[in-house]
Amino acid sequence: MAEEIDYHPMWKDLGMDVEAHDGLLAAVGGMYQDVFLTQENRPKSTEYLDNVVMNIHSGRIKEMVDHKASDGQKVVGSFCLYVPEEIVRAANGIPVGLCSGADWATDKVEEHLPRNTCPLIKSFTGFKLGKVCPYIESSDLVVGENTCDGKKKAYEYFGTQKPMHIMDVPNVKNDGTMANWKAEIRRLAERVEQETGTKITAESLKEAIRVTNDKRRALQRLSATRAADPVPISGRDSLLTVQAAFMDDAERLTGAINAMADECEQRVRDGVGVAPKGTKRILYTGTPMAVPFWKLFSLIEKAGAVIVGEECCTGYRYYKDLVDESGKTVDEMLDAIAERYFNINCAIFTPNPGRIEDVMRLAKELHADGIIDCSLQFCTLYDMESFTLEKAAKEAGIPYMHISTDYSNEDAGQLSTRVEAFVEMI
Amino acid sequence: MAEEIDYHPMWKDLGMDVEAHDGLLAAVGGMYQDVFLTQENRPKSTEYLDNVVMNIHSGRIKEMVDHKASDGQKVVGSFCLYVPEEIVRAANGIPVGLCSGADWATDKVEEHLPRNTCPLIKSFTGFKLGKVCPYIESSDLVVGENTCDGKKKAYEYFGTQKPMHIMDVPNVKNDGTMANWKAEIRRLAERVEQETGTKITAESLKEAIRVTNDKRRALQRLSATRAADPVPISGRDSLLTVQAAFMDDAERLTGAINAMADECEQRVRDGVGVAPKGTKRILYTGTPMAVPFWKLFSLIEKAGAVIVGEECCTGYRYYKDLVDESGKTVDEMLDAIAERYFNINCAIFTPNPGRIEDVMRLAKELHADGIIDCSLQFCTLYDMESFTLEKAAKEAGIPYMHISTDYSNEDAGQLSTRVEAFVEMI
Ligand code: SF4
Ligand code: SF4
Ligand code: SF4
Ligand code: SF4
Repeated sequence: MAEEIDYHPMWKDLGMDVEAHDGLLAAVGGMYQDVFLTQENRPKSTEYLDNVVMNIHSGRIKEMVDHKASDGQKVVGSFCLYVPEEIVRAANGIPVGLCSGADWATDKVEEHLPRNTCPLIKSFTGFKLGKVCPYIESSDLVVGENTCDGKKKAYEYFGTQKPMHIMDVPNVKNDGTMANWKAEIRRLAERVEQETGTKITAESLKEAIRVTNDKRRALQRLSATRAADPVPISGRDSLLTVQAAFMDDAERLTGAINAMADECEQRVRDGVGVAPKGTKRILYTGTPMAVPFWKLFSLIEKAGAVIVGEECCTGYRYYKDLVDESGKTVDEMLDAIAERYFNINCAIFTPNPGRIEDVMRLAKELHADGIIDCSLQFCTLYDMESFTLEKAAKEAGIPYMHISTDYSNEDAGQLSTRVEAFVEMI
Repeated sequence: MAEEIDYHPMWKDLGMDVEAHDGLLAAVGGMYQDVFLTQENRPKSTEYLDNVVMNIHSGRIKEMVDHKASDGQKVVGSFCLYVPEEIVRAANGIPVGLCSGADWATDKVEEHLPRNTCPLIKSFTGFKLGKVCPYIESSDLVVGENTCDGKKKAYEYFGTQKPMHIMDVPNVKNDGTMANWKAEIRRLAERVEQETGTKITAESLKEAIRVTNDKRRALQRLSATRAADPVPISGRDSLLTVQAAFMDDAERLTGAINAMADECEQRVRDGVGVAPKGTKRILYTGTPMAVPFWKLFSLIEKAGAVIVGEECCTGYRYYKDLVDESGKTVDEMLDAIAERYFNINCAIFTPNPGRIEDVMRLAKELHADGIIDCSLQFCTLYDMESFTLEKAAKEAGIPYMHISTDYSNEDAGQLSTRVEAFVEMI
């Protein structure tokens, strides 16, 4: 897509701070150049990703704004993998992810949230207060969730800034909490229907499930190619595929990811990689990585390793499970959705053995030489769970490193040194 | 009670590190001397509190150990106000609070928990790892709860050290979560019955409710006297009454608190106070204050103010509500217990307007000149809620100060300066 159109009037219409936003876009462009476009021997099909990023605040937003005007569609934003996009889609909504990966308007944020808050939470609050996120601004409804302490309480403030619906996510997995979860899924469906004015039907829900499963199937295909040595695609580009999945049009994304999978499958057959055969292979696990927080992935791969998998919400957790497609009634399908989402292994659950099993299995399947487990600063849940993970890795004999970081660049030098030492050691 | 008995054999039998524990006891004794016994014009009946602290790890533990041996009673420890002591008591258990207020065995703790963990959580973990808490060691069962992120995940480790039962506490208050909460109350009852081998009957539950209500009624009486100017009793001593309520024998405590209420009511009639009439009056609100974390209260009152109320779990929240006593069947009474406990206004709930209302009402009723809101370091929930509280205080025109602190003494000088400035300003 060419960038001829002037999007400033659109951003202004959305109520954004256009000048500040220009600054943000320029910074993201610079980071993208440095992190992505300096890669050698990238699959050609990653051009799609370049386009996604180029259009992320412009062309894609215009599409959504146009859909809102012409088809009466509503944009429904969310911050968490537990919010089922199938439901939004089935009710004529456009689901978008609002997690944000850059510090913004920190002074304003700290008038409403403690300094010791996880950067992801500060970031989406700052993007709202600084009016620089067209996804937040174009959202007609924002769906929050009671997951971690920080998000749960931060939504009390965010809800004064945008119309919100909060889903109550359980702490434990058992029959009782599954029953509540099924009720929460229905409460969401009702709320979204109310917002869009469109009733969810068996047809629309079946189609939404199929479209979403297709996304996940494409991502699974691509991910499977990363078991090869040399690995056909970098961790950076793979991370971006899932980040794109929260923002881009579903069918376009599916097509593009399938094309990437085609190319990567061919690369595997040809023994072509993005890094030389024998490059040290890292499995990433931990907190989500929102656009444009590419620091850690960039730093790991610039240290001479390659990331072969991401056990996190901007990775494997997003595509690992499909919704069962055999449901015939809305009720059956809503149950199937509830069950699929209940299988996500987030550290908010206690205990959370499924995540440990996933990490250990992925490490084997993807032939990882080491695990890097990162929690965003002040994320108690992932910080705490890192101790369990470290023990499991030790028992399995897989080298493990825990990192705590934030969105600033202050620790980049120190982190690089630690990561380089880890990569050398494994 | 005289301290002639040598308790070292008992502590050894409990598996404690007797030598380290001697050091802890000496330190607590010194703090008690400095914080409590230097007060002028204390009510005479506070002698009871001196006795509680003198016997806290000795005579009181011996009593419990003796009960275990002679009546087959079981000690059931807990960390949170949401765990109903009525149920433990009705099943022939002895309920004790395990929250801990001092740093201990920090190096060992940080092998299992992140450094950035709330001091309360680090403390109970350290008390266990360092084997210095006779309440933890004598507990036959420990009841945890899914409240904050930190405790929820820390119990995964603590549960490897002690037999545990976890209660699932909701995030929101509505009919659906109330139904689950009622089920959780029953699950606790079953688990405690199983531990003690004693079935809860209508008689035993009725009696347990009465005994516990009597404790709360006595504390309400005492608290009411603190609306007077001059205030008859200090914040430090009042805090200790509720700390004692988690550890001492219920009926002894009730008798002693009623005697304190008698004396304080008389003092009010006589115009006698622990601080001169006109002393600046502070309402405390925030995270719990576990024994021996008396730093903040001491520092506030040494700054020339007097604390007239504590909207926290080691204060008002403990005694504000009674369990309805009209229930006839076990089922009715369990429901009444569930309802009473659901009314606790902890920051784990979202939203939590009840706490804001309580703080504002208490400030008025107790004629507070200012509010000091404290969150223990890394407590996201109370940290976040402080912004809501500050706004409400501003709207009500009540001076407000937020403090974040931990169990160390490093910030004492700086905190004193801040508190003194606040007290002068109001
Ligand atoms: S890490 Fe947990 S809380 Fe965060 S987005 Fe993923 S599922 Fe949601
Ligand atoms: S990274 Fe952790 S603290 Fe931050 S939003 Fe996710 S779960 Fe919450
Ligand atoms: S502050 Fe909340 S979580 Fe902590 S003891 Fe009180 S009720 Fe429980
Ligand atoms: S003070 Fe806060 S972080 Fe600490 S245990 Fe209580 S609720 Fe959890």
